[in-house]
Amino acid sequence: MRCLILGGTGFLGVNLTNLLINLGNEVTVFSSGANKDFLDYGLKAKFVCGDFKDRNLIDSLSRNGFDYIFHLISTTKPSNLDPYSEFTDNVLPTINLLESVKKSSELKKIIFISSGGTVYGIPEKLPITEEHDCNPISLYGIQKLTIENLFFYYHHQYGLNYQSIRLSNPYGPGQPAYSNQGVIANFLRKAILDEPIEIWGTGNVIRDFIYISDVLEACKACMNYSGDQTVFNIGSSQGASLIQIIGYIENILNKKVEIVFKEGRKQDVPANVLDISLARRELKWRPEIELPQGIRLMFNSWSASKHKFMI
Amino acid sequence: MRCLILGGTGFLGVNLTNLLINLGNEVTVFSSGANKDFLDYGLKAKFVCGDFKDRNLIDSLSRNGFDYIFHLISTTKPSNLDPYSEFTDNVLPTINLLESVKKSSELKKIIFISSGGTVYGIPEKLPITEEHDCNPISLYGIQKLTIENLFFYYHHQYGLNYQSIRLSNPYGPGQPAYSNQGVIANFLRKAILDEPIEIWGTGNVIRDFIYISDVLEACKACMNYSGDQTVFNIGSSQGASLIQIIGYIENILNKKVEIVFKEGRKQDVPANVLDISLARRELKWRPEIELPQGIRLMFNSWSASKHKFMI
Repeated sequence: MRCLILGGTGFLGVNLTNLLINLGNEVTVFSSGANKDFLDYGLKAKFVCGDFKDRNLIDSLSRNGFDYIFHLISTTKPSNLDPYSEFTDNVLPTINLLESVKKSSELKKIIFISSGGTVYGIPEKLPITEEHDCNPISLYGIQKLTIENLFFYYHHQYGLNYQSIRLSNPYGPGQPAYSNQGVIANFLRKAILDEPIEIWGTGNVIRDFIYISDVLEACKACMNYSGDQTVFNIGSSQGASLIQIIGYIENILNKKVEIVFKEGRKQDVPANVLDISLARRELKWRPEIELPQGIRLMFNSWSASKHKFMI
Repeated sequence: MRCLILGGTGFLGVNLTNLLINLGNEVTVFSSGANKDFLDYGLKAKFVCGDFKDRNLIDSLSRNGFDYIFHLISTTKPSNLDPYSEFTDNVLPTINLLESVKKSSELKKIIFISSGGTVYGIPEKLPITEEHDCNPISLYGIQKLTIENLFFYYHHQYGLNYQSIRLSNPYGPGQPAYSNQGVIANFLRKAILDEPIEIWGTGNVIRDFIYISDVLEACKACMNYSGDQTVFNIGSSQGASLIQIIGYIENILNKKVEIVFKEGRKQDVPANVLDISLARRELKWRPEIELPQGIRLMFNSWSASKHKFMI
């Protein structure tokens, strides 16, 4: 199969590229720049470097007869500081993409990575099913939800086949430890280096973390899925507080870490745990790696790697 | 009170401007152009002509210490032909507006006219409450919903006080008869002129129509409302098919009209009737004018006016 991965040089992108190549697919990766991981590991993918906002580029790229397109692109800057670009950098280019592929006869499916942690807003009850109201309290969540609504529109209007993955927080080997994204990689690095860990709020916020190999299995299942459901929660369905994660890390490293508490942020929901019954039932998928085990796997991988914190 | 009406020269805008002036408010109207109605009737409002996309203009205008801002602007072109501009013309300028007023100490409330007919998509049951899922099947609906989500975000993040009115289809005297908007005005004009009436689909689609004076009363009630609800359905809560409307018109004119059926459009929901219990309870508001009566009032007003079809 011919696959295009938009945003294929990030944590999930690199892993997904690897997976799709190993499965025998012909993979094209589009990104604004290839980072060290991607180049170092010399993935056997065709690489197209460019700006997602470049209308002509995305139009000509997406019309290359791909069977599957994965849309993983998302601006990573703290979006509450620049609400305007959250839309110009993410939503508008996605409209261009959808306009380009809406009538494609070759495209089997377009898979969008949405955000299970932000599209729902403050949950009325846990775990959160896909039926839960969507009242995001962050611009990131609004952006993701708007794109989901656009996918649904193109599906309804033009019969575009798509899958929206409302992903919780992925972690695992390959996650950059120096990025703002990825609490676990960040905490683990700081703990190893004996640096204090900074926490927004009390550390009691609950999040749903999912190991990267479980995410990849879900992506594979979505590619093969032929049922009617378009939106799936993909997470562990297990909640963990930041304090708990630090506890797991302390266990693995067998030492105490220092925590610095900072003021909580209004755009952070107090708790988020995803109900994954629909994905279990429809995709015949389930997460395999529990959190303490996953963190240990990540630590082991870092210890074994020459790029200690990078892959 | 000092009021700003963004998009104050359309059907609803002109009527709202009139109302607010009559209530003793100091009104500023912003619009991309003053149409004939607005100029003819010489409303005693300050008029600012400009482009909603002009960031500096909207920023300086909205910082003039208004007590109330009404956001009525919406592109009126058939949006499914130009999905990109649906966002650049409506959503992005609204972000600029919200950024400008988010920390205003003078602003008592900003009231946004959303679309009760499109934000919900295909209803699971009728009438539709505000709790109903929002799965719009038109870009117009996505645009309105996205702006609602942005209002909610600024409310949550900055305490911005707002009200979102999910309006059904307003009609009445003052509605332009030659515009694409406004089924009733359009049908009535054609019937008077013995022109055939064009209908997309079978004419059995159900819509909720609300008389303009009832909309104005709802706007007034929203200004005075101090409760916690931010989103209200405002409609008649009565469904009517297009065929029924033509029947009412035939009764009033005492003649048969010719109907030309055209192919249905995918972005039209089959039925939409709003549940207005929340507005009844919270705003102490209720619609007064029933549809046949409203159409007759509209016809009488046209008959009495020198601008036969315009006001």
